[in-house]
Amino acid sequence: MHWKKQKWCALLALAVLAGTMGLSSVAYAQDDAEVVAATSTDIEGLQNNLNIVWTCVAAFLVFFMQAGFAMVETGLTRAKNVVNILMKNLMDFSIGSLAFFLFGFGLMFGTNATGWFGTDNFLLGFVEYGDSLDSQWPFTFLIFQTVFAATAATIVSGAMAERTKFSSYLIYSVVITGFIYPVFGSWAWNALFSNGGWLEGMGFLDFAGSTVVHSVGGWLALAGAIVLGPRLGKYGPDGKPRAIPGHNMALAALGVFILWLGWFGFNPGSTTTGDGSIGYIAVTTNLAAAGGAISAMIAAWILMKKPDASMSLNGALAGLVSITAPCDAVSPVGAIIIGIIGGVICVVSVLAIDRVLKVDDPVGAVSVHGVCGAWGTLAVGLFNLEAGLFYGGGVTQLGIQAIGVGAGFVWAFGMGLVLFLAIKYTVGLRVTEEEEMAGLDDGEHGMEAYSGFQIFTNQ
Amino acid sequence: MHWKKQKWCALLALAVLAGTMGLSSVAYAQDDAEVVAATSTDIEGLQNNLNIVWTCVAAFLVFFMQAGFAMVETGLTRAKNVVNILMKNLMDFSIGSLAFFLFGFGLMFGTNATGWFGTDNFLLGFVEYGDSLDSQWPFTFLIFQTVFAATAATIVSGAMAERTKFSSYLIYSVVITGFIYPVFGSWAWNALFSNGGWLEGMGFLDFAGSTVVHSVGGWLALAGAIVLGPRLGKYGPDGKPRAIPGHNMALAALGVFILWLGWFGFNPGSTTTGDGSIGYIAVTTNLAAAGGAISAMIAAWILMKKPDASMSLNGALAGLVSITAPCDAVSPVGAIIIGIIGGVICVVSVLAIDRVLKVDDPVGAVSVHGVCGAWGTLAVGLFNLEAGLFYGGGVTQLGIQAIGVGAGFVWAFGMGLVLFLAIKYTVGLRVTEEEEMAGLDDGEHGMEAYSGFQIFTNQ
Amino acid sequence: MHWKKQKWCALLALAVLAGTMGLSSVAYAQDDAEVVAATSTDIEGLQNNLNIVWTCVAAFLVFFMQAGFAMVETGLTRAKNVVNILMKNLMDFSIGSLAFFLFGFGLMFGTNATGWFGTDNFLLGFVEYGDSLDSQWPFTFLIFQTVFAATAATIVSGAMAERTKFSSYLIYSVVITGFIYPVFGSWAWNALFSNGGWLEGMGFLDFAGSTVVHSVGGWLALAGAIVLGPRLGKYGPDGKPRAIPGHNMALAALGVFILWLGWFGFNPGSTTTGDGSIGYIAVTTNLAAAGGAISAMIAAWILMKKPDASMSLNGALAGLVSITAPCDAVSPVGAIIIGIIGGVICVVSVLAIDRVLKVDDPVGAVSVHGVCGAWGTLAVGLFNLEAGLFYGGGVTQLGIQAIGVGAGFVWAFGMGLVLFLAIKYTVGLRVTEEEEMAGLDDGEHGMEAYSGFQIFTNQ
Repeated sequence: MHWKKQKWCALLALAVLAGTMGLSSVAYAQDDAEVVAATSTDIEGLQNNLNIVWTCVAAFLVFFMQAGFAMVETGLTRAKNVVNILMKNLMDFSIGSLAFFLFGFGLMFGTNATGWFGTDNFLLGFVEYGDSLDSQWPFTFLIFQTVFAATAATIVSGAMAERTKFSSYLIYSVVITGFIYPVFGSWAWNALFSNGGWLEGMGFLDFAGSTVVHSVGGWLALAGAIVLGPRLGKYGPDGKPRAIPGHNMALAALGVFILWLGWFGFNPGSTTTGDGSIGYIAVTTNLAAAGGAISAMIAAWILMKKPDASMSLNGALAGLVSITAPCDAVSPVGAIIIGIIGGVICVVSVLAIDRVLKVDDPVGAVSVHGVCGAWGTLAVGLFNLEAGLFYGGGVTQLGIQAIGVGAGFVWAFGMGLVLFLAIKYTVGLRVTEEEEMAGLDDGEHGMEAYSGFQIFTNQ
Repeated sequence: MHWKKQKWCALLALAVLAGTMGLSSVAYAQDDAEVVAATSTDIEGLQNNLNIVWTCVAAFLVFFMQAGFAMVETGLTRAKNVVNILMKNLMDFSIGSLAFFLFGFGLMFGTNATGWFGTDNFLLGFVEYGDSLDSQWPFTFLIFQTVFAATAATIVSGAMAERTKFSSYLIYSVVITGFIYPVFGSWAWNALFSNGGWLEGMGFLDFAGSTVVHSVGGWLALAGAIVLGPRLGKYGPDGKPRAIPGHNMALAALGVFILWLGWFGFNPGSTTTGDGSIGYIAVTTNLAAAGGAISAMIAAWILMKKPDASMSLNGALAGLVSITAPCDAVSPVGAIIIGIIGGVICVVSVLAIDRVLKVDDPVGAVSVHGVCGAWGTLAVGLFNLEAGLFYGGGVTQLGIQAIGVGAGFVWAFGMGLVLFLAIKYTVGLRVTEEEEMAGLDDGEHGMEAYSGFQIFTNQ
Repeated sequence: MHWKKQKWCALLALAVLAGTMGLSSVAYAQDDAEVVAATSTDIEGLQNNLNIVWTCVAAFLVFFMQAGFAMVETGLTRAKNVVNILMKNLMDFSIGSLAFFLFGFGLMFGTNATGWFGTDNFLLGFVEYGDSLDSQWPFTFLIFQTVFAATAATIVSGAMAERTKFSSYLIYSVVITGFIYPVFGSWAWNALFSNGGWLEGMGFLDFAGSTVVHSVGGWLALAGAIVLGPRLGKYGPDGKPRAIPGHNMALAALGVFILWLGWFGFNPGSTTTGDGSIGYIAVTTNLAAAGGAISAMIAAWILMKKPDASMSLNGALAGLVSITAPCDAVSPVGAIIIGIIGGVICVVSVLAIDRVLKVDDPVGAVSVHGVCGAWGTLAVGLFNLEAGLFYGGGVTQLGIQAIGVGAGFVWAFGMGLVLFLAIKYTVGLRVTEEEEMAGLDDGEHGMEAYSGFQIFTNQ
């Protein structure tokens, strides 16, 4: 890659965040606070500026996915827990932004001597902001990677909705964005900024993060949902699951549209380069999403007798998660097929997790992000136009992809179990039965989401 | 235009979509799945990259209009039909994305020997994705045109809301995005990519699609609303219309803001070029929208005694639709006037269609998109700074514009009648009376949108 | 700065807006209404194109903040006043767009001989739209500045919600965007386009508008809330404040996410230049927002015993407002500290205004925009990497910043008092008690926001 790590100036002294004032030794070389139209002196400088503009715009679109997740999770849960899920979404992004800046970025993109984690660039250890790309690019890269880290973290809130203590949620958000996510990221993406991790050294391909972001988030969510246990009333005395319908399908659909929009930053933005490939990736991304929505609707129509809206909406997301790893290097038709398969997998997975595994995942996060993330990562080994099995690439790439998928599961699910069990047996992970029945909005936040409306909270 | 059609490699064998795996013969020449900062070697290459970035960003904004339409249509209809209208919006975009990729793009932008439809580039018949603009631009152009096609299709759902069978909706969505819209598009816009259609050969000007997108969608919606007939209870025994208020004005307003945002992709993005004209077009677009909102509010205040919110919101959209054709070549003051007239036309049209024609259009789609689209197209003949009547251009251009408006009406309304009557007398177009009374959410999808809320569905 | 005012052609005759047709004498030199890929011939032209693309995209993001404000204000007020607040948000932007085009832009960015207001460029007095940057840039700059002006205006609607007459609202929106805001703007930002105002001549630094936009809006809101008086029932006979909860926290949270997104246009876009500084400013902006959300949550947890959602959401906005002035020239760690302090200030200010000053500000606009805007402006004097007190800059800059803060308060609060008192004693500022009890949706607009829902309006 073209941007190379430079000699970073010495690490900032690990500043006490909440306190002393003159703590930052960063020298900021922008010489003029006025609005200046910089004139680059050469072609390379200009392409760099274009790359920065594009990557920033893409980062902003990915940021907006936070609103999408918030609306999906709000819409698919009950009215008595709305304030709580919104606060969790607000706070995982806020806490995640600080944690990733302080610890996560360095772990993920710092010098990676062992291949297992980075060891510098904490507190964004690059110091001079100046005129050269070497001094500007890290900040653009940081904002782009921050919104990715927050995506992984926020996936978890959906699967653990309607029963998790707010204070415990804050704790594990820090751990996920500051440690679990970036360590795995350093295995697969460290070479984007530094010398590289062990998975990418093997040739593992995950262009925009089917595994790095979505499966990691999904497997953490699975661990959390298992440790928490199902919501009260979700499974009857006979063990049969009961449907607990979401309270606002308009918000859920709005959320999916916002997420779809955000994915145009997520996938094409992962080029971090303003060139023709972003149009190509936008096409594959869009076709897979469309395929996923349609196939999930059809699958639900067959299995559930009606074109279910929750399943169709999740199908679009399933298509998007599935194409995230292979989006840059499959054909448009390949993208459609990947999306279609992803949509079907999602429906089957949601039903299996609900009815067979009896794990209560209120919004289907484990299926959409965990399972379809795995499928999308494996699909690289099948459909990649150079290395895929269907294109004469042999089984080697497919094997490497499977190793990455397995590593993601072992790390994220394993660390998730450790994390959530540790919280469970110390500060506690779940609210009381009384609070759960009355709703977390009242218990945790002392307010209601829909003041003035007649709402039945005894569902 | 500068981008020229090349010798396309042979058409992809029309692949069976839902099935065989190794079907795509597209060769994808991106040589590196890693993140690479491409350095263009010349000015032209860099401007091309900028054009691609801008056109992609604009396409994403236009995509987001799907969320805007979904929220407007949801907000302006009743709570018992929310899931249904959301599913229609999700599915027309999903199905439309595939249909336009498979058939529509080729019909619209393929070689147009007759001037009446394109005959190649099906399945995006351009094959090599490589380093040159000729090999990259088609994908960017496809994603931009896909979201335009979906806009035309989704307009229809609003006018036919609250009574159309879901399965029939899926059928006609395919026909609209795969056939009706692209054929008309090939008359007016084929020269953007290929050799040109008959309307543009005459000198017809429709910069961003007042007719090509909005009127076509609006006239299709009119045909659909006529064939369907009004909602139960909309007209009393005496033939007087009854107001059926929408259930959520907050979502309707949110939708209008989203659409306004999306129009900054729709109009300035239609340059497909990153240069100074996009700022100019943003100004004319915004001023027309503002003028439309204000004039519609005043018109409603006079005619209905109150500053009606639905009318004001539709007035903003009316201004936007009206400026879509002339946005690139009228003065800012001209844009304000076009918007103001559009807003008034919209209010009068909504009242006339409701009270005189007695066609039941729940959201006002025919007036906003059909009627104001026609007005905006004619306005080119009046206000265009080179060819407009008020700028010394004579009546020639105005006559050509009128021919385009007429052709749009004949084609879209005529094909719409054929399509909807064919569906009506085969699989059926409308739900049963019982289902309509109870709401389509329960009948078509087996779920409710607002679980836990007390809602009166007998309205 | 690099873009220089040129000899403007003679002012357009102040055209009668609503009338005569051929009124615009603007010559529009775009020679081709077709889609043309302009090829710039030199590096400078290309950087200019990139600057235009970036500034337009940023302007569109800032435009979207209108939706954010609308959702926040809607969510935090009662269901019976939803249509009214939405209409106010729609109309202040629409009216503001016209007023700023007609009068405001000239007052703010026209030739500023006295330093106190501009005197040309009314009706966008630049005439030729041509190929050079000098002829293209004004339009891009106009759309960017229009959305800024509208931001200042829309802040006011929140503090005056639930009791202000709609017609009076329209009147003062014109005055704010057409006069009060642009005159102050000419003191601080005129040099961006013309020769400069008195505050910037002193060295006052307000990069993206903590004072120019947010404090001005906040102090106007304070004047309005004082002149209006509190909502009925807000203060009991004993003078104790009563909480009047908002009706939809999901919309409020959505609004905050949208505003956060929009701020990525607001702050980084204020470079109006596509270069590396936008990534840097995105980082500082995001970190301050995150810090503000977290610190406000903690402050509320301590002071109110629960992690209050309204306070946390406002905390994110407080962080964003606080970093708006210093975003370009503080370190990332400095940004976090500025945001953290802003979040705490916001919570304390909301409680103090409610309980001590007994001014009824339903959404906390005065605290978020007025008070935190002042804090952010002062923070430049502390944290600026060149001129800040903590970086060896002495107290000079801090003093200049204080003068700017004071000037903003005196001008905006003073003009606000004059404006609102003038309206109060002529056409009237407040609805009747009966209308306020029943809700402004019915009284002002003759409709309800949530038809079909059971809502208790007697709160």
